[in-house]
Amino acid sequence: MEVQGQNKFHKGRCFCADKGVDVVSPKNIEKLEIIPPSPSCGKQEIIVTLKSTERKCMNPESRFTQYLIKRALEKMAQQ
Amino acid sequence: MEVQGQNKFHKGRCFCADKGVDVVSPKNIEKLEIIPPSPSCGKQEIIVTLKSTERKCMNPESRFTQYLIKRALEKMAQQ
Repeated sequence: MEVQGQNKFHKGRCFCADKGVDVVSPKNIEKLEIIPPSPSCGKQEIIVTLKSTERKCMNPESRFTQYLIKRALEKMAQQ
Repeated sequence: MEVQGQNKFHKGRCFCADKGVDVVSPKNIEKLEIIPPSPSCGKQEIIVTLKSTERKCMNPESRFTQYLIKRALEKMAQQ
């Protein structure tokens, strides 16, 4: 699996080669993936798939990424 | 896309036909997907992929599902 728009040379077996983008347009998000740390990649990774089918690594430290996850959590409590 | 172990007859174009499971073993989780509401499915869906490659819909109202997302958020802040 390879994430478009990222460096092709992954560190270890991580999907995300770099920090990832800070922001994407929320209305273009088709899904958001959270990949927990594993023996093949020591960091948690957050990947969005856009409606254009493009995949982007999200910077886990960006306020926007954290807002996306918080909003998902709020929606879960409401459903 | 079809989620194994679930009813084959989806409501509209949702992936998850029913409420989904309340708990899975965290160490078996390969990734967690959050699919926001869309014109084809009015509810937010949470799908886990297990290391066995099996996919399961998670009950968004279960405390365990909410704990998984909260834990991911905490890890993001730490990284």
